[in-house]
Amino acid sequence: MEPMTHEAIIKEISALADKAAALFEEIGAGSYDGVGTTRAAFGPKETMAGEVLERFARSEGLDVSVDHVGNFHYDLTIDADAKTVVMASHLDSVPVGGNFDGLAGVVAGVLVQAACKRAGIRPATNLKTLGFRCEESPWFGTAYIGSKLALGLLDQGELDGLKRFDTGKSLGTHLHELGAVSNADEIRERRLRVEDLSAYLELHIEQGPLLDDMQLPVGVASAIRGNIRHPFASCKGRYGHAAASPRHLRSDAMTAVARLITAADAFWAELLEEGGNDDLIINFGIVTTDPEQHAMTKVPGDVRFSFNIGGTRNEVMESLYKRIRAEAEAIEREFRVGFDFGTRVGTEGIQLDSKLAEIARNAASQIGVKTHVFPTVGHDAAMFAKLGLPTGMLLVRNQNGSHNPDEAMEISDFITATKVLALWALSSTRQ
Amino acid sequence: MEPMTHEAIIKEISALADKAAALFEEIGAGSYDGVGTTRAAFGPKETMAGEVLERFARSEGLDVSVDHVGNFHYDLTIDADAKTVVMASHLDSVPVGGNFDGLAGVVAGVLVQAACKRAGIRPATNLKTLGFRCEESPWFGTAYIGSKLALGLLDQGELDGLKRFDTGKSLGTHLHELGAVSNADEIRERRLRVEDLSAYLELHIEQGPLLDDMQLPVGVASAIRGNIRHPFASCKGRYGHAAASPRHLRSDAMTAVARLITAADAFWAELLEEGGNDDLIINFGIVTTDPEQHAMTKVPGDVRFSFNIGGTRNEVMESLYKRIRAEAEAIEREFRVGFDFGTRVGTEGIQLDSKLAEIARNAASQIGVKTHVFPTVGHDAAMFAKLGLPTGMLLVRNQNGSHNPDEAMEISDFITATKVLALWALSSTRQ
Repeated sequence: MEPMTHEAIIKEISALADKAAALFEEIGAGSYDGVGTTRAAFGPKETMAGEVLERFARSEGLDVSVDHVGNFHYDLTIDADAKTVVMASHLDSVPVGGNFDGLAGVVAGVLVQAACKRAGIRPATNLKTLGFRCEESPWFGTAYIGSKLALGLLDQGELDGLKRFDTGKSLGTHLHELGAVSNADEIRERRLRVEDLSAYLELHIEQGPLLDDMQLPVGVASAIRGNIRHPFASCKGRYGHAAASPRHLRSDAMTAVARLITAADAFWAELLEEGGNDDLIINFGIVTTDPEQHAMTKVPGDVRFSFNIGGTRNEVMESLYKRIRAEAEAIEREFRVGFDFGTRVGTEGIQLDSKLAEIARNAASQIGVKTHVFPTVGHDAAMFAKLGLPTGMLLVRNQNGSHNPDEAMEISDFITATKVLALWALSSTRQ
Repeated sequence: MEPMTHEAIIKEISALADKAAALFEEIGAGSYDGVGTTRAAFGPKETMAGEVLERFARSEGLDVSVDHVGNFHYDLTIDADAKTVVMASHLDSVPVGGNFDGLAGVVAGVLVQAACKRAGIRPATNLKTLGFRCEESPWFGTAYIGSKLALGLLDQGELDGLKRFDTGKSLGTHLHELGAVSNADEIRERRLRVEDLSAYLELHIEQGPLLDDMQLPVGVASAIRGNIRHPFASCKGRYGHAAASPRHLRSDAMTAVARLITAADAFWAELLEEGGNDDLIINFGIVTTDPEQHAMTKVPGDVRFSFNIGGTRNEVMESLYKRIRAEAEAIEREFRVGFDFGTRVGTEGIQLDSKLAEIARNAASQIGVKTHVFPTVGHDAAMFAKLGLPTGMLLVRNQNGSHNPDEAMEISDFITATKVLALWALSSTRQ
């Protein structure tokens, strides 16, 4: 990149810091749910977020459109026949989540394009920022729906069969109510074609504590963790009077699930001790005795729970998964209960483009920022990487984790990361 | 007892079997909640149960009244100055419970009195059947409220401070809305005085599987289990992105609670292996991650649970309790979480009258029924035993446990037990 181009874009992004803070503020206030942030997938708050950015983008001279499946496109088009670098992330949040998870990447992309416009920079290829809907898995029990729709990767069965947990309505119905296309064939026909793209770059807050721990503002992702998930698992025992049921005659579903969680945690600790498994995680995020029937004085007869393994190496996850399922079978016999794990969902772990990661590190060092390369969690980026498009991710330091109201990304870290993204995007167009 | 009296009462109770079935049927149908039986404490279904029995009792020539705290009294009064044998149990149920827990004892007492009337038997003392309200602990987080009110054992702080879990209204407000007295001094002044009574006899379905296992229709209780309870315990960790939070940086409240449940279960198994602890139980009946915030992809930051130890020997319960609390402290350090057990409630274990138990066994053998003597769970009987009144309990075989919609007492077993109760009550009056 020309030194002057470099200087100009950095300067313009610095100048946009207050605007960025104001955009986060406005969208955050508009999607406050009383405790945290809730932007439901295909809901009005998600649309609001896209529209706030639309007004800003238009005021900066960018083109904005909503595609056939409801995703927002913010475009700086140089040549309709040229390839496009996509910067993207998602507009939805988990229920009672934080304001930055997803949103940060969309804001960053639009800022990069606005800075190019302001600095009069004409990138070598088109720049497109994508604001996906519905990346978060709680809404339909599975992740990346917005990017999968954009890429035409969902079939009609999924459009009709996936139901939003709170509305009970199908994905297709939600699309239809938004005025979007709900027919799988048409969605596929009108899909975003990776052959028209040259790279996919996603900026996202780090969802763990590592960068904060290492005192680094920006990280570069090496891989995306996959996962093996059972969103709707359950254990069935038999209700009984707590005080009158001897231990050997009980079928206590809660003690059985507690034993399974404890065993899974012990397996995890073992694998960490073995070494080389730092990317692995296990989570039982939802566990509940049946609120319609449970009581202090009843042996719990029904427990519902969710179960999630994450990691970058599929064979390690698979082996851990088998061990946990075998343990569940042993517990069934010991506690006279029955486990029903329900549908298994998940995605494979995926490596990101190492050349793009190297370019990102160089971009960071050009502005004097040290980075660290490490695996991240599931993101829309995985969908593009899987289709063979060179794909990379930047992570922004964030305290208190994500998927909760306490996400605490500093605007200064965000601006630093957006500068890296800008240099990265402009370098990527020259590949 | 005269052989003719004996024969006559047995015959009249046999003749009342269909009537008993019809009373259970009518009250059960009237309190069906769509899944099981719900007769909320101080609620209209509890009142309905008392009134159905009132109509029957009046038709049999018995006196009926509702006292200053809403309990139903069914009386066969011989001499206002004579002592009274009380037969009693409760009219309420747990939420989504069964039809027989509590109700059986009230129906039995009224049947015994009706049979006396029909047979023209004049007992040596008065017979009173009491239908208590609010014996079950889910309603206000603590048990035996109806009998405690009858005996003037609650103070104003409890009347104002205890709230029904579903209405949020205080015990005093519920009494007031029923037209009953809600002032502790007046309640105490008008209390039932144990010095006017000669014995308290309670028939109740067995709430465990022992009689069914032993193929016996009727059992006699030796003692009432006490308990140590924390109805509203919780564990606080920190929410985080499940896949991005390494194990050593998590504060996973659910895994911590699972570990506590698993440890408590292991302590229980140990104590049973040591021998002599068959009366002990441990129960975690309610366990739930926070439904407002939990998600498959979040490290669970809050878990609420209930915790209950039961047993007849207070020192054994206390020692087990201390061990579990110490384990919770160790888990707090290991998992970086905080437990808050909330208010401790409970009752002491209590021995029942051994002479009364012997009389009950003899009464059973007079009608050719073999019994077994064993400890039972908490009942209103405990309140009377504690005040020094000779107190005894009969247990009726019941399949599928209690506190659930599947309670399965046979009317033939109930009638057998009611005959034992009749002979017992008439013998007790001669003590």
